[in-house]
Amino acid sequence: MSDRVYIQEVALRDGLQNEALFIPTADKLALVNALSLSGVSKIEVTSFTSPKAIPSLRDAEQLMQTLQRNPQVCYSALVPNVRGAERALACAVDEMNLVLSASDSHGLANLRMTAAQSLIQFGEIVQLSQGQSVQLNASISTAFGCPFSGAVSDVQLMRLIEQLLDLGLDGITLCDTTGMADPAQVAQLCQQVLQRWPQTPFTLHFHDTRGMGLANALSAWQVGVRYFDASLGGLGGCPYAPGASGNICTEDLVHMLQRMGIDTGVNLGALLDAASTLPELLQHPVPSALLKAGVADRRYPLPKAAQAK
Amino acid sequence: MSDRVYIQEVALRDGLQNEALFIPTADKLALVNALSLSGVSKIEVTSFTSPKAIPSLRDAEQLMQTLQRNPQVCYSALVPNVRGAERALACAVDEMNLVLSASDSHGLANLRMTAAQSLIQFGEIVQLSQGQSVQLNASISTAFGCPFSGAVSDVQLMRLIEQLLDLGLDGITLCDTTGMADPAQVAQLCQQVLQRWPQTPFTLHFHDTRGMGLANALSAWQVGVRYFDASLGGLGGCPYAPGASGNICTEDLVHMLQRMGIDTGVNLGALLDAASTLPELLQHPVPSALLKAGVADRRYPLPKAAQAK
Repeated sequence: MSDRVYIQEVALRDGLQNEALFIPTADKLALVNALSLSGVSKIEVTSFTSPKAIPSLRDAEQLMQTLQRNPQVCYSALVPNVRGAERALACAVDEMNLVLSASDSHGLANLRMTAAQSLIQFGEIVQLSQGQSVQLNASISTAFGCPFSGAVSDVQLMRLIEQLLDLGLDGITLCDTTGMADPAQVAQLCQQVLQRWPQTPFTLHFHDTRGMGLANALSAWQVGVRYFDASLGGLGGCPYAPGASGNICTEDLVHMLQRMGIDTGVNLGALLDAASTLPELLQHPVPSALLKAGVADRRYPLPKAAQAK
Repeated sequence: MSDRVYIQEVALRDGLQNEALFIPTADKLALVNALSLSGVSKIEVTSFTSPKAIPSLRDAEQLMQTLQRNPQVCYSALVPNVRGAERALACAVDEMNLVLSASDSHGLANLRMTAAQSLIQFGEIVQLSQGQSVQLNASISTAFGCPFSGAVSDVQLMRLIEQLLDLGLDGITLCDTTGMADPAQVAQLCQQVLQRWPQTPFTLHFHDTRGMGLANALSAWQVGVRYFDASLGGLGGCPYAPGASGNICTEDLVHMLQRMGIDTGVNLGALLDAASTLPELLQHPVPSALLKAGVADRRYPLPKAAQAK
């Protein structure tokens, strides 16, 4: 396993879909273009869901078609169903990120589909994308537990992953959608999937809802996970916990990994520059710790009391 | 090494010393008495520093003398110098927590003493406490780096620990005073000290300034650390990073450890009850993730959309 970690930016999708405000397309473009040059390996640009369901992402086509592509970056978009796939393919996305829920109660609440129903749609999307140069990733929501029905068993999750890979999906993302995972659970589950499917790229997608986000990322990294979703500024939120933190924050994650001597390929300064535009853009503070505190090797002038001595 | 983790509560000292508001002694008493029954193993009740320097802790004597002692709990107080030790001994504290800085620039700024000058004071305090039933702990500030002068070398830190133990100190706390530590550094340093001094209780004291607090605690736990300082509500702050998070949050730490199946002896519900009083008491929100999001096994009612199916 390589020691390089791949950072996949989801603020434009998972972050902005939680914002009440519609961010003008030009501002989104500036953000995605800045991120394209920051060294992140993938950007989830938008979601091809119904503009009625998520009005803040209603400019999906325009955004995908006008962004400046960096050939080093994979431009992904969330796709919940066949209609979304048609729209995404028309925009020549590099990757379609198909989303389903491990838990049927969450699937019905969020997508109006059980996992079985999602799998049927995915089969059609696989057909639709035959012969096209597009990657297919599946993001499994509530992989570490469901806020409605509780625990998701390993057996259930393994079976779902197997079904997805049998369909022909290229990669799998395990999402801790509402921040229920703990580091022991993460280590145990990630070890299992990496051992069973060593050729499949597994991404871990953590939320910091209960403060365990970076601890979970550390735990996943320790057992060999090398692909992480994260959100600039820590945008994201959780609809079930008003005021709670969102996705793990990209700049905080990259900073931790860099301090540990782990190569992410990301220019932290470029990330921080992009993140610093968010509070004004969104008209509220963002969870990012680094935006408040600066990097760990930031130095402060010696106070007068210490100089006098 | 035991699997039991000991939680040491510092909100009343490290938390409140950063508050502009003076919390009435009766409210502090209610808090310390509630914490005494929560299962934490130690409470840093106050600091015997100059009331002029830290007016918010000016009721140190009154608080120590009127709290209801639980014999299961060690009641500790911060002591920066000989004068403070005399005051603490007069109140019959269970432990004096002597504080010094690994970095002289931080020591001069914070305590107006270099480490060498602190050690001289500590020698006097050791003399003073001969024959009294009081434990002596030393908290080493900036053990993982200094916000003024940067890196603190392992050699420098090891020598300081050795000098402290030679003086007769009973325990050592390594403090990441301004949240500079990362999990790799923590693992490396903790492994060294635990191997070299296996009989000495080492406490780790993390701040969440850059979001790495719980990841650092996880890393320390993985290499065998079993004593952790933490602050109810995540009170604390960092004078050099306005708005940044403070100490790691006791309820968030206990929640993570419990989810991992680790015994802390702490009643999380009692902690959350105590933490829930803080925002009104301090007249501002507190960093605690659990106060916003609730515990990970919190369940939400199934939305109508999912029930209809």
